[in-house]
Amino acid sequence: MSGVFYGIGVGPGDPELITLKAVRIMAGAPVIAYSATEEGESMVRAIAAPHLPDGRIEIAVRTPIGRGPAAAEAVYDGYAAEIARHLDAGRDVAFLCQGDPFVYGSFAYLHERLAARHTTRVVPGVSSLGAVAAAAGVPLVRGCEVLSVVPAPLAEAELETRLGAGDAVAVVKVGRHLAKVRRVIQRLGLMGRAVYVERATMENQRVLALARVRRASAPYFSMIVVPGNGSRSE
Amino acid sequence: MSGVFYGIGVGPGDPELITLKAVRIMAGAPVIAYSATEEGESMVRAIAAPHLPDGRIEIAVRTPIGRGPAAAEAVYDGYAAEIARHLDAGRDVAFLCQGDPFVYGSFAYLHERLAARHTTRVVPGVSSLGAVAAAAGVPLVRGCEVLSVVPAPLAEAELETRLGAGDAVAVVKVGRHLAKVRRVIQRLGLMGRAVYVERATMENQRVLALARVRRASAPYFSMIVVPGNGSRSE
Repeated sequence: MSGVFYGIGVGPGDPELITLKAVRIMAGAPVIAYSATEEGESMVRAIAAPHLPDGRIEIAVRTPIGRGPAAAEAVYDGYAAEIARHLDAGRDVAFLCQGDPFVYGSFAYLHERLAARHTTRVVPGVSSLGAVAAAAGVPLVRGCEVLSVVPAPLAEAELETRLGAGDAVAVVKVGRHLAKVRRVIQRLGLMGRAVYVERATMENQRVLALARVRRASAPYFSMIVVPGNGSRSE
Repeated sequence: MSGVFYGIGVGPGDPELITLKAVRIMAGAPVIAYSATEEGESMVRAIAAPHLPDGRIEIAVRTPIGRGPAAAEAVYDGYAAEIARHLDAGRDVAFLCQGDPFVYGSFAYLHERLAARHTTRVVPGVSSLGAVAAAAGVPLVRGCEVLSVVPAPLAEAELETRLGAGDAVAVVKVGRHLAKVRRVIQRLGLMGRAVYVERATMENQRVLALARVRRASAPYFSMIVVPGNGSRSE
């Protein structure tokens, strides 16, 4: 009997924002995997820690940053092979993901290598979109508003086109692109509604009007949202 | 002491996809409110039922469909007043929402009436976006892909513009607009990747390639997704 490969969303940061299903499957899986930095820290493991039973085999998936796609592909091939050995031996493997596995999750890179040959199931989690709106205290989208979710690394002109296409907007992966995103939001006339949220639902969460943010760069776990203005009713 | 008004996301349908935090707050709130049809059924109450303690005051928020915005406004005014009386008497009120309260949730209509005068907190939930992707078995967005979330009631020409603006697309509130959405997706050349998902994560979930869906109308809890094709790496 081959094991099952699970992609488990553990939510945006607050360990209490994990689902009952995620907790149950983690409790039953002999192998737990998660993304980590090259130095060893794992944000997602820290989120799941209160719910992780002792005595599990743990696989920290350490991916190289900024060494090009070929290096990353080779690294994911290696981790996929390691996970496949556990599955072939009949051991379930739970891969933990911050937020939701299929919404910008690195789980996709292992899924594309393993799903064809192994039973794979995804447990959706609370994504950072709802978490950031909750932190900002404003509905993100209402009625018939269109939501555009746009990654900040896009080139400035494309960022402007894409941000302009939604009634409400969420800019993800802000990090070192903060100054560029701020310029674009200013040009689009959206600064009045734009909110900057850092580490939503975590203990050190910060929420500021974007107009009041002075720095040029932000932590990876930051997002900028422009909530809809409520003008499109059902 | 005034009570706290909570907006609680209970997730997309599977009662196990509720968060630990939602369960804890429901257990402590003396008043539980939720949306319901005029006839009395409440999908969101059914999702939360396994976690609802006995002996709570329950408020079924029954909103009129298709009788115009003025009628809906008056109804929400009435429910807001009823909830405010509990809050003023020091009783916490937990308003349950399918999915996430701030992502197309009817919670917004009560939030705008109550948040200025009462302490209000939102507990984000698993939204149907991740749940539909999990049901389809495909990552919704990867790397630097743009996600457009578009309500199906938009006029056909606008629907086409908005759907064309994303690398990945989720069409929400499909219902009786199914035939129109299918025409637009066909014209945009996206039919090959389009997946139709009905009642994601519920017991009677259905997943079909959109090209194989023959009917002209769908249940309210259905969505159509066109996942990104993975061509925009980090």
